[in-house]
Amino acid sequence: MSGCLSIVGLGPFASELITPLAAETLAATTDLVGYAPYLARVPERAGQRRHASDNREELARARQALELAASGKSVAVVSSGDPGVFAMASAVFEAMETGKPTFKDIEVTVVPGVSAMLAAAARAGAPLGHDFCAISLSDNLKPWDVVLKRLEAAAAADFVIVLYNPASKARPWQLGEAFRVIARHRAPSTPVIFAHAVSQSDERIEIMTLAEADPAKADMRTLIILGSSATRILSRDGRSAFVYTPRHAELVEP
Amino acid sequence: MSGCLSIVGLGPFASELITPLAAETLAATTDLVGYAPYLARVPERAGQRRHASDNREELARARQALELAASGKSVAVVSSGDPGVFAMASAVFEAMETGKPTFKDIEVTVVPGVSAMLAAAARAGAPLGHDFCAISLSDNLKPWDVVLKRLEAAAAADFVIVLYNPASKARPWQLGEAFRVIARHRAPSTPVIFAHAVSQSDERIEIMTLAEADPAKADMRTLIILGSSATRILSRDGRSAFVYTPRHAELVEP
Repeated sequence: MSGCLSIVGLGPFASELITPLAAETLAATTDLVGYAPYLARVPERAGQRRHASDNREELARARQALELAASGKSVAVVSSGDPGVFAMASAVFEAMETGKPTFKDIEVTVVPGVSAMLAAAARAGAPLGHDFCAISLSDNLKPWDVVLKRLEAAAAADFVIVLYNPASKARPWQLGEAFRVIARHRAPSTPVIFAHAVSQSDERIEIMTLAEADPAKADMRTLIILGSSATRILSRDGRSAFVYTPRHAELVEP
Repeated sequence: MSGCLSIVGLGPFASELITPLAAETLAATTDLVGYAPYLARVPERAGQRRHASDNREELARARQALELAASGKSVAVVSSGDPGVFAMASAVFEAMETGKPTFKDIEVTVVPGVSAMLAAAARAGAPLGHDFCAISLSDNLKPWDVVLKRLEAAAAADFVIVLYNPASKARPWQLGEAFRVIARHRAPSTPVIFAHAVSQSDERIEIMTLAEADPAKADMRTLIILGSSATRILSRDGRSAFVYTPRHAELVEP
């Protein structure tokens, strides 16, 4: 007999941004599966089992969750932010399609959450107010040429661009190259946001221009948002600036 | 003396998807400003004033909210979904920049929410599991040529594509033209999701191929998600299908 599996978005770090549906779903499960630091954000409950794993093992973690559900457990896989954006939901469906035939009988639900991108944008103002793209700079799972092609297209067509996974110790040069590709299409005055550790105690939101942006300042906990040609920095005396992209747009010739 | 202004995302329709921060912020304000159907979703509180307006008047509504805050009120502007994605936050910052100098002294906070895009994706599976774009098909505020250029770029670079505002009575042909542009770059078997009235009582999630997609089925309450070349439909016997985009990608030559 089959149990059920929920893939739950915890939102960014702060508990005030987790939805009631996510909280209720987590409370009702017998087994929690996820990357250890995300599991640590879920309140402890008597009788609930926790299966913590390392960050890199997404597909193995997805299979483990499906095995538990197939054996009759009520399982939640936890993700930070939204589970559907560069996160666990995709891995679970891949494991379902490529794994045991019984996996397809499991009742699966995705519980959305406030994504890192939306939380970062809110802290900076409204940079995603008009057409935008989200691109992961990680080349662990795709050729760098695919990343380059997408950056080029997004920059040329004047999208606001959100960069997930901009840098890590193993990927130190990718963000600098991304900035160079984008700078061929965008003015040096284009607003850039470095959003570090959003909604955590060491949160830092830095607003600057593309000319000032230093790729070395990004790490695994940073999200980058680059404005379109219409995006504006709204400065205020003695207060932090805002970045916003107007709802209207004009045709920009390259 | 200045009051304060919060721009609050209610999430999609269901109250189980509103964050605790949004609920607390709404409860603590003296004045609520917004499009009437969104205001109707906020629980009534004694002593709180409501300022409902029509859908088209975003900038006027933003100015009204700033005027109330400038007069010392504690104001919340409500948006469905996330207030930063094709919604009110951008209008408020524009009104702040172009309006009275005192508007810039107002304490403004954006409270993010689960966007329509994330909620629709969760109901269908994990279509946003990899690089994606969000494009508004409305040409009320931008030339149609800008829309075409962005559709062309997003399709050629193999992004998953989310279409906001796909159709209305005044804009009946835009979605058909968008599908034709995308079909020049994407196979007829590309998965397409029509997400109608997500999390409402008449919610309808339809999964089909690009060849089958009928633009006439979309209206103002529909969100469209088109897969990349890697996006898959996971069919299941006797159960609804899922759509997911794997976390890995390969270079696709046009």
